[in-house]
Amino acid sequence: MRVLGIDPGSRYCGFGVVEDAGGTRVRHLAHGVLEMGAASPIEDRLRVLHEGLSRELGRHRPELVAVEDVFHARNARSALVLGHSRGVALLAAAQAGVPVRSFAPSVIKQAVTGTGRAEKDQVGRMVAAVLGISLEGRLDASDALAAAICGILRARDPQASAPRSRVDWRAAIARRFAK
Amino acid sequence: MRVLGIDPGSRYCGFGVVEDAGGTRVRHLAHGVLEMGAASPIEDRLRVLHEGLSRELGRHRPELVAVEDVFHARNARSALVLGHSRGVALLAAAQAGVPVRSFAPSVIKQAVTGTGRAEKDQVGRMVAAVLGISLEGRLDASDALAAAICGILRARDPQASAPRSRVDWRAAIARRFAK
Repeated sequence: MRVLGIDPGSRYCGFGVVEDAGGTRVRHLAHGVLEMGAASPIEDRLRVLHEGLSRELGRHRPELVAVEDVFHARNARSALVLGHSRGVALLAAAQAGVPVRSFAPSVIKQAVTGTGRAEKDQVGRMVAAVLGISLEGRLDASDALAAAICGILRARDPQASAPRSRVDWRAAIARRFAK
Repeated sequence: MRVLGIDPGSRYCGFGVVEDAGGTRVRHLAHGVLEMGAASPIEDRLRVLHEGLSRELGRHRPELVAVEDVFHARNARSALVLGHSRGVALLAAAQAGVPVRSFAPSVIKQAVTGTGRAEKDQVGRMVAAVLGISLEGRLDASDALAAAICGILRARDPQASAPRSRVDWRAAIARRFAK
């Protein structure tokens, strides 16, 4: 099972690819940030986004795309702007024939950290620890990778009301650090 | 000057193509409503929308795409949903190499009816009268045609703070009905 997580914004779009490695392990394959060009008209930024995501979809051939639900944006304007990028991301997935799953922010946080109320930097640290990679800077792909990890957990156990992540990840991290 | 107006929604997308016919006249070329499929997942609806708009862009080869600003949606959720379709519409325009202009709802209403506070059915009646066509039913393309007409007026007079439509359209309609 290979999952591409996408975190679309208005100027940058994070993406991350992870693979189920069996047991409690998730393997990191790739991540990055697509720069859509801050100064361009929005339609040109969307074109760059579509090209970039289509390229990554073709390169990594995921079986699932995981994105965050963003129905709780600060206001209608920011929701609309975000919706433009999210729509283009979903379009790229559909055109590549890859199914999409959408997760509430609290579900993703729960999956990765064990609590649905985790702060952003806590999510980032946990993602880095679980995948054994370094994630630095404000414009990282940690939210996209978190969505992808959540996609793996939910695919393993689609009926779970909440991913059974607390035990799994604590154990995974304990093993990682014990090496 | 040929303009494609687009009115993207979450399940239907109106479109209309008009052409500057000189003087105060605007020629109707085409209009329609793309059905995105109510029951499908959103990513499939967006794919249908993208295919449909790309086809219309190729068929009519407009020099401008005109859309409405929708920054004043009822709430963040509806803005986000609308943003998905609007983003895909802008993407299709950019991929076709057609520039996009975005107009506030009040500017479009002003352009078509002479008042920025016109009701939706008033806009529809005026669009039908100006173009000499019949527009019926709730799911018509009148908002898309109104955006396209606004695009023509603004292209004629880009510096105008408000389109000089009151006089122009009243005269145009008077002439039409005098025939």
